[in-house]
Amino acid sequence: MAKTLNVGMVGYGFMARAHSNAWSNVSHFFDTGYRPVLKAVAARNTEKAGGFAGMWGYERVENDWRKLVEARDIDVIDVCVPNDLHAEISIAAAKAGKMVTCEKPLARTAAEAMPMIEAVEAAGVPNMVWYNYRRVPAVMLVKHLVESGRLGKIFHYRAKFLQDWTISPDVPQGGAGTWRLDVDAAGSGVTGDLLAHCLDTAMWINGGISSLTAMTETFVKQRKHSDTGQLAPVGIDDAAAVLTRFANGSLGTFESTRYARGHKAAYTLEINGEKGSLAWDLHDLNRLQFFDHSVEGQLRGWTNILVTDGDHPYLGKWWVPGLIIGYEHSFTHQVADFLTGLATGKPASPTFREALPANQVCDAIIASGQSGQWVTLQT
Amino acid sequence: MAKTLNVGMVGYGFMARAHSNAWSNVSHFFDTGYRPVLKAVAARNTEKAGGFAGMWGYERVENDWRKLVEARDIDVIDVCVPNDLHAEISIAAAKAGKMVTCEKPLARTAAEAMPMIEAVEAAGVPNMVWYNYRRVPAVMLVKHLVESGRLGKIFHYRAKFLQDWTISPDVPQGGAGTWRLDVDAAGSGVTGDLLAHCLDTAMWINGGISSLTAMTETFVKQRKHSDTGQLAPVGIDDAAAVLTRFANGSLGTFESTRYARGHKAAYTLEINGEKGSLAWDLHDLNRLQFFDHSVEGQLRGWTNILVTDGDHPYLGKWWVPGLIIGYEHSFTHQVADFLTGLATGKPASPTFREALPANQVCDAIIASGQSGQWVTLQT
Amino acid sequence: MAKTLNVGMVGYGFMARAHSNAWSNVSHFFDTGYRPVLKAVAARNTEKAGGFAGMWGYERVENDWRKLVEARDIDVIDVCVPNDLHAEISIAAAKAGKMVTCEKPLARTAAEAMPMIEAVEAAGVPNMVWYNYRRVPAVMLVKHLVESGRLGKIFHYRAKFLQDWTISPDVPQGGAGTWRLDVDAAGSGVTGDLLAHCLDTAMWINGGISSLTAMTETFVKQRKHSDTGQLAPVGIDDAAAVLTRFANGSLGTFESTRYARGHKAAYTLEINGEKGSLAWDLHDLNRLQFFDHSVEGQLRGWTNILVTDGDHPYLGKWWVPGLIIGYEHSFTHQVADFLTGLATGKPASPTFREALPANQVCDAIIASGQSGQWVTLQT
Amino acid sequence: MAKTLNVGMVGYGFMARAHSNAWSNVSHFFDTGYRPVLKAVAARNTEKAGGFAGMWGYERVENDWRKLVEARDIDVIDVCVPNDLHAEISIAAAKAGKMVTCEKPLARTAAEAMPMIEAVEAAGVPNMVWYNYRRVPAVMLVKHLVESGRLGKIFHYRAKFLQDWTISPDVPQGGAGTWRLDVDAAGSGVTGDLLAHCLDTAMWINGGISSLTAMTETFVKQRKHSDTGQLAPVGIDDAAAVLTRFANGSLGTFESTRYARGHKAAYTLEINGEKGSLAWDLHDLNRLQFFDHSVEGQLRGWTNILVTDGDHPYLGKWWVPGLIIGYEHSFTHQVADFLTGLATGKPASPTFREALPANQVCDAIIASGQSGQWVTLQT
Repeated sequence: MAKTLNVGMVGYGFMARAHSNAWSNVSHFFDTGYRPVLKAVAARNTEKAGGFAGMWGYERVENDWRKLVEARDIDVIDVCVPNDLHAEISIAAAKAGKMVTCEKPLARTAAEAMPMIEAVEAAGVPNMVWYNYRRVPAVMLVKHLVESGRLGKIFHYRAKFLQDWTISPDVPQGGAGTWRLDVDAAGSGVTGDLLAHCLDTAMWINGGISSLTAMTETFVKQRKHSDTGQLAPVGIDDAAAVLTRFANGSLGTFESTRYARGHKAAYTLEINGEKGSLAWDLHDLNRLQFFDHSVEGQLRGWTNILVTDGDHPYLGKWWVPGLIIGYEHSFTHQVADFLTGLATGKPASPTFREALPANQVCDAIIASGQSGQWVTLQT
Repeated sequence: MAKTLNVGMVGYGFMARAHSNAWSNVSHFFDTGYRPVLKAVAARNTEKAGGFAGMWGYERVENDWRKLVEARDIDVIDVCVPNDLHAEISIAAAKAGKMVTCEKPLARTAAEAMPMIEAVEAAGVPNMVWYNYRRVPAVMLVKHLVESGRLGKIFHYRAKFLQDWTISPDVPQGGAGTWRLDVDAAGSGVTGDLLAHCLDTAMWINGGISSLTAMTETFVKQRKHSDTGQLAPVGIDDAAAVLTRFANGSLGTFESTRYARGHKAAYTLEINGEKGSLAWDLHDLNRLQFFDHSVEGQLRGWTNILVTDGDHPYLGKWWVPGLIIGYEHSFTHQVADFLTGLATGKPASPTFREALPANQVCDAIIASGQSGQWVTLQT
Repeated sequence: MAKTLNVGMVGYGFMARAHSNAWSNVSHFFDTGYRPVLKAVAARNTEKAGGFAGMWGYERVENDWRKLVEARDIDVIDVCVPNDLHAEISIAAAKAGKMVTCEKPLARTAAEAMPMIEAVEAAGVPNMVWYNYRRVPAVMLVKHLVESGRLGKIFHYRAKFLQDWTISPDVPQGGAGTWRLDVDAAGSGVTGDLLAHCLDTAMWINGGISSLTAMTETFVKQRKHSDTGQLAPVGIDDAAAVLTRFANGSLGTFESTRYARGHKAAYTLEINGEKGSLAWDLHDLNRLQFFDHSVEGQLRGWTNILVTDGDHPYLGKWWVPGLIIGYEHSFTHQVADFLTGLATGKPASPTFREALPANQVCDAIIASGQSGQWVTLQT
Repeated sequence: MAKTLNVGMVGYGFMARAHSNAWSNVSHFFDTGYRPVLKAVAARNTEKAGGFAGMWGYERVENDWRKLVEARDIDVIDVCVPNDLHAEISIAAAKAGKMVTCEKPLARTAAEAMPMIEAVEAAGVPNMVWYNYRRVPAVMLVKHLVESGRLGKIFHYRAKFLQDWTISPDVPQGGAGTWRLDVDAAGSGVTGDLLAHCLDTAMWINGGISSLTAMTETFVKQRKHSDTGQLAPVGIDDAAAVLTRFANGSLGTFESTRYARGHKAAYTLEINGEKGSLAWDLHDLNRLQFFDHSVEGQLRGWTNILVTDGDHPYLGKWWVPGLIIGYEHSFTHQVADFLTGLATGKPASPTFREALPANQVCDAIIASGQSGQWVTLQT
């Protein structure tokens, strides 16, 4: 008989929807020994939170996240609010002995993240950061293939995350939907929002980044701030491009922007090794491109693997070969692994500590973008 | 306040999972005025049905579908069993005043389907057949574009549904998972299973088929039957190819097989008109290819539309641009439309009657495959 | 020291350009022992022929093809005129002891082709029909892979050749550029022009066609004829779709049209076997798609082979890996094989006789399109 | 009547073949007023040069390029030898009053290139550098679209040129075919060989580069040198990645390597503007991807333009829509433009002077790769 796990959700925005879907449907597909229950939502705007709770079947609404932290019947606090609130809520939750799952990036900076890590470790509570793209089956397959040595020595890693939704100078900063343009709430722009994903995946697959140099740019210098209704300087990076050296000797290139017309959520990655290469694109997330140099000469090429077979990661739990899954399934997989981790005692990755390097590299990118200098990192 | 709609599921197999997911999550995304409740599952194998009910949260299990039909607390009977059982269950459910949603094809033959149609119409109960691919957003967009005249006069329609899972002669016929190879259970092979989808979409978009000629083949002539454990003649069509004339003067080609190595669920369709063309592929179901001849000459080409924007059909209810959805979402959309139809009184398509032409054309294909003659159809 | 081979070209249109390019550049890339010399062009319109001769360096122009046939210094007659003239010229050339290379289809009908075959065989002169797509490297690779058994038993063959250039009813019939719409000059429409290519390749790769049924259509019933300037009934097929059975037990589907908006020269083919599948598209002629079922499960997919490596057919003579070749190279390859055939005494395929089956199948398609009946063919 | 232009070719390697093809076939397709004649080849290895001359129809062979420079009957000297010889030959040819066309990069460094520029300008002789990719029709279309303002303000430019042919440490440096790995002969590695192309195209389309920072790497530190047969340090860059700022405010990223398994000649470029984006790939050089933001919302996407229509750049001279051209056609176009430039007096781009910025940026990349610092350039 599955144990129940009562979820307390902080926030009701886009990520809260994606997480709620995962908590809600994981038990329909994965037999982990736990069955999440959508127990309560907390938000200052209780009217909106109420509507959200109604859609998803949360049993109650609180007007302050502290009530969730204090509630006896909540097992796990899921932090789905802007980045500037991650630390306070996570630390309080940990101190109250709650499990904590925090939306990425862990914090606005590595410095802000450190006490969060210390808090969950001191409390000994299960914790996880929602770097969901690790759980896309094709990306998991990349991880497995690289680890198994199918690519041999790695020479290159490159990733991009391109969007185009802030090209108009009329997009405001601050507030619901656009807090990501407000440096106080977000910490940084595309670096923390998008490159953080690319970097987390990259280091998980290809190991640590030892040094980097970056170029950052803010194309639109002023935007109306939702708090004041007035034009205010834009503090975030609209675009960032990075050259890196990995500890394993390979070279990395990373780029992110919200000014690449025609790209919506174009997270792409490619890795080139001595024996083969792999490439993936979020827009076609069920596909993995594999060049296998061990194939006989005339027949070599990039194989377009439709990652929907029963022996592909996670896919045995879904439909049948050829029938694709979508974006939100990555969250369901992450919850499945989190619940399995509770059962086995082996934490699902990335824990708060495992999510720190992405924050550290983001910090280095922002610094290098300002200084023009290479930055060395501990790996 | 949403009204509850109690679902009685007959079956626990693959389609029952897809339907249950849709009943289960529709309210999280679509505000239709109804909230389905997964009330009961019926199946002879109550152990398996019990496991299924546990995963999905059905409140009880019955060992006979008749108990669902008789149950006071069931509003809608969802028929997810092999084709040979569709008629009896649907008719009984209608007579008991239940709404009925029946997996496609409606029946093994049009003759078998007719009393089903009469029953639901006599009872005046809401009814629907799960031709789910109509509700893929990109396919719905095809429908809208063709109806709006963007393609002008239509010259050609072509569709294929290719699979490769029965190439091995060791695949048995009959029983769970392989009843589709047993002509008694399925009625036909790829024609009813796969071409039925292609034909339903085609006629919905391009109007009726007035005549056809077909070639059918059974590559593996004998397979072990799960009932007896003995080799038995295979009665289904392993492959079928069809030439059609539509009532609007356009030409159609249709093909389906389970012997196309490398294709898993390769439902593709294309439509060519005077002013433009459209093409779609289930393997990449979020994409629609559009050739618009009205574009200035040098810049004409096939536009690869990533159908994930908020103004695309159904997509405003899901995530944000660039984030794809999967196979099962088509069922959620179908349930959403069914529930909306209950609210508005305008039935969601296809009703039992609207699903009949697909059965009629399938019958003609089987007949023509045997006779080698063109068959004329009423349109 | 290479022997010279004096070419007498009959015609100055599109195909004459493609052939002239091949005769002209073959020696720059292929060392066959022969060096073609562009000796003379014959055409009634000597002004246009003169301009053509000037561009290509033909040494003289004749106002009648008979003068080429009679000329002592001409070794090979290249027939690049409308189909209705193929027989007379080819037969006369053969009788005069000239080698003959004839543009496809060999003739308007198989009946018309038979005396041509008899003439070249009686004269014992080298002869070839320009089914150039056999010599696209990727198509040649298909041939090699199928012959080597890489696909195992074949289940399906499908090919299409789609164009869109005659959708406008203002396109005339008859005359330069549009004689292909005039049934007297062309013999048939898309069947002889486009399907003939598909059928020639198909039978070369997959063996003979034993029976077929076809649907043909003429969408625009009347077009202005260039001879009279008056509207006249259109005698050609605008579109044709065909179901075939091959002698090896596999099923074929073929389709061609000039009413598929957005397709320019979309010759595509696919072949499905027990062990694998292959697919090719003329628009991307340097690429071959290969699904190899022998690959380990998780890594199976369609491999996109960029057929530009030195060990790919013909490619060792061109550039370096990754640098593609174009349409006209297929003709250069055909000339190279023809010249090699002269040196070795082993004729380059297809000879006139080897090109006959394509004509026979085209005849059957036209007949079946009219009768609605299956037609049986000798294989 | 076309004037003859006598070509003196220096070299007989890969580029000499590509250029000879262009000189040889340009008159078959383009009516420029000039007809090149392949007059003489010069090389120290007269045996190999003789074989080359025989294939291509050069009338004579010289054992020293100086003989071509001195020859009365030579109009244009085509420099197709390793980079370290470009300057001496070009300068001598210019001083002798010959036109000079020099393979790219113009020289090993900008410093070495300057006297070349001065020489051709002092002599007043027509001159051109073979940055052939400008003449790929799809790339020319990019140029036209950007110039016409279809993309609006430019935000991003990115280009890569990926290969994989030097991954094996057994590839030697120096000598025929592998002089590109010898820093003395080549000047640099991927930077001068591959990035030079990317940079030339980029600045031609998007204007000057004002600053950059680069990362360079030599993966294989020692290779056998063909001069000595001994292992020697490798002086070239095996890989280079660059961040740039363009004078127009846009950001650039460039990368090149010969260690990207699976990529043969993968020159790709993409440009993102306010109103649209364009992308191109040398492996599929006939295709251009265009995202046009002015299209109505639901129908926006990347349009795959098959650049083979008569109104596309250069294509009216080749075949018919849908029939692709290959790599070598870019050289034919370059010769056609060069000859047209002779006729009109408006030099074909890039002249020696116009090719200088690519060399300057390459120098800056090598310098930044060593220093780790941003380098500022004059634009």
